[in-house]
Amino acid sequence: MLKSTTKPAVIGYYSTKFGELWEKSLTDLLEESVVGALSNSCLKIEEIDAIFVSNMLAGILENNLHLNSKLAEILATNIPIFRLESACSSGGMAFSLGVNYLKSGVAKNILIVGAEKMTDYPADIITDALASASGGEEQQAGLTFPGLYGMLAQNYLQSFDYTEENLAFVAIKNHYHGSLNPKAHFKKEITLNQVLKSSYIAYPLKLLDCSPITDGAACLVVSLDKEKIKKAEFKAEIMASEVATDSISLKGRESLVELKATKIAGQKAFKIANLKPENINIAELHDCFSIAEILAMEDLGFWQKGTGGEKIISPDLMLNKGKQNSLKTNTSGGLKSCGHPIGATGIKQIGEVFLQITNQAQNRQVVDCKYGLAQNVGGSGGSCVVTILGSY
Amino acid sequence: MLKSTTKPAVIGYYSTKFGELWEKSLTDLLEESVVGALSNSCLKIEEIDAIFVSNMLAGILENNLHLNSKLAEILATNIPIFRLESACSSGGMAFSLGVNYLKSGVAKNILIVGAEKMTDYPADIITDALASASGGEEQQAGLTFPGLYGMLAQNYLQSFDYTEENLAFVAIKNHYHGSLNPKAHFKKEITLNQVLKSSYIAYPLKLLDCSPITDGAACLVVSLDKEKIKKAEFKAEIMASEVATDSISLKGRESLVELKATKIAGQKAFKIANLKPENINIAELHDCFSIAEILAMEDLGFWQKGTGGEKIISPDLMLNKGKQNSLKTNTSGGLKSCGHPIGATGIKQIGEVFLQITNQAQNRQVVDCKYGLAQNVGGSGGSCVVTILGSY
Repeated sequence: MLKSTTKPAVIGYYSTKFGELWEKSLTDLLEESVVGALSNSCLKIEEIDAIFVSNMLAGILENNLHLNSKLAEILATNIPIFRLESACSSGGMAFSLGVNYLKSGVAKNILIVGAEKMTDYPADIITDALASASGGEEQQAGLTFPGLYGMLAQNYLQSFDYTEENLAFVAIKNHYHGSLNPKAHFKKEITLNQVLKSSYIAYPLKLLDCSPITDGAACLVVSLDKEKIKKAEFKAEIMASEVATDSISLKGRESLVELKATKIAGQKAFKIANLKPENINIAELHDCFSIAEILAMEDLGFWQKGTGGEKIISPDLMLNKGKQNSLKTNTSGGLKSCGHPIGATGIKQIGEVFLQITNQAQNRQVVDCKYGLAQNVGGSGGSCVVTILGSY
Repeated sequence: MLKSTTKPAVIGYYSTKFGELWEKSLTDLLEESVVGALSNSCLKIEEIDAIFVSNMLAGILENNLHLNSKLAEILATNIPIFRLESACSSGGMAFSLGVNYLKSGVAKNILIVGAEKMTDYPADIITDALASASGGEEQQAGLTFPGLYGMLAQNYLQSFDYTEENLAFVAIKNHYHGSLNPKAHFKKEITLNQVLKSSYIAYPLKLLDCSPITDGAACLVVSLDKEKIKKAEFKAEIMASEVATDSISLKGRESLVELKATKIAGQKAFKIANLKPENINIAELHDCFSIAEILAMEDLGFWQKGTGGEKIISPDLMLNKGKQNSLKTNTSGGLKSCGHPIGATGIKQIGEVFLQITNQAQNRQVVDCKYGLAQNVGGSGGSCVVTILGSY
């Protein structure tokens, strides 16, 4: 436990554009995001004590590991740099561990950076590489992540008597939000009819229920340095960042209408932050597939289990549509519309919460945004990180 | 900084046999080492608050990532589990980060586990996968790690006027120590003549200058729990565990007769532990190639730069040969003879130091062993972790 009463804060953030960035390498993306975050927080690399790097696929796709030493070379530094991998929750894991590292007292200012380069490869190669995050037997059986989430979706719709139309509202909302985000992969609104008429990928999930394959990087500056936090133009308190794991194989789960890792990480985070779901103004949720956002809202306690299929239809979750002061979800566009460059996703989610809390979200700014939550899931729920930020 | 005055301790250790373990999967190795370490420390999995997992190659070799969630499934737990990768220093990184995690106050008892499964694949596949840890241009140029360390070796021999015979004494010593270690991959002594007559791999390095391709796993139990440490039959204080990085590409280095990351991590570790090289009784050094142990001894301050080629000939470094109370190095057999299952190596090094300090090293026990050091290097020196343990 920390002797100091200084509260850890996010004091800077930068993300590259998310999309098909064929002209940029993984190294280019890492460098752009680090340079951008340092610039946005008016810090120099010499003021940084350690870096946490998040990436999932570079080993498999481009035989590229030991990214910490490669980042040391780019930045011409000898500071401790750690690389974390936890499939799609790599970014959240790096953040949570980085915050604990600060609290141990060995560092005052750190970077959390994540990147992924995915669009240079055909979809079958990516799908196969992503399956590395699923249970061994599921992988051997040829189950892909659309397949696994398809089963979770079908089970949910049948258990609580909903249809594919209910799922579609996740995609409609998040594409609307993406249309307001200049960094988003897809800046295009979609209609209910378009979602329902899109091709099946893994029944009942259709193309527009699925997040895309995306390139991108994001970087946060996190501080426990009283002076630096005081000087920072923009700052948000890190109230909690909690991790839980679960059996990666669906066969090992107690329930298939929830992700237990989300429930546990969420309960811990709310307890530590001393907040309740009703206090949260904005939530970035891990909508890798439409069903995932509905499960997340229920598992985090925003909605009762089984009610999400109906609740998701409400325009109140959207910017500029329903009640102004109600909880807004995935204002960045979420994984669905902003894109899902795996290693960057968890960091971008926290970055979006930071932008909202510090009133930097421009045309997608949520009014009176005091508390925000980010939920980052690995695979089909084998790991989860829930982070809560508040006004500093 | 910690309010408590309890000092973090290693209280348990287990390693599988190192070798060609064709009948065991990565999962089998992870499970065996965790179960063994828990048993050796008389703890149950329910008493563990978090786990740090180290592995380098499973993504590339067997399309197997998200190991944290797979470990959660094996152990039927929902606790935080983090996966670290830093090439050959993955194990040391997991340990260092785990110790800081304890110091942050969020956990009291943790496991640090590392495993690698390498011998199911032909050598060219492994060599290519390992090259993922080198600089991008080095990799593209077709340079392998024997090639990179070969250049470092040649540069050292020329700079300080030594011959290949000087390098050979690293291998002779470590094979003798391996012959005393029942867990070692090679339990066979070798002669100077055998080393010098072995085939060239990358000039001036020969087959018997190189560590082998090995399967294995190792697990440490680390505690900051006053009661648990008090009860523990065997315990060693964690005095320091420090990380540094460096340009991964040789072209970016200031000097080619040293590994700067080792120097920095070593200086930090000695300072924090308030010790000097002459206080150390046993050192496990990262002898992936014979030259690496000589560089390490110099970079850590045991020997003056350039003198290692001569100093390594002394029988005093060996068990049962020279002076009884002098510093002994790589009593486990080192990477050279005990084997180098990448993700496990850094953990096995600290495990060997723990066994020596707690008088459990049986026929390779160093007399009056109070302080021990482990040095774990990533790639050709792009990252390094130096850990110092002392009697509790």
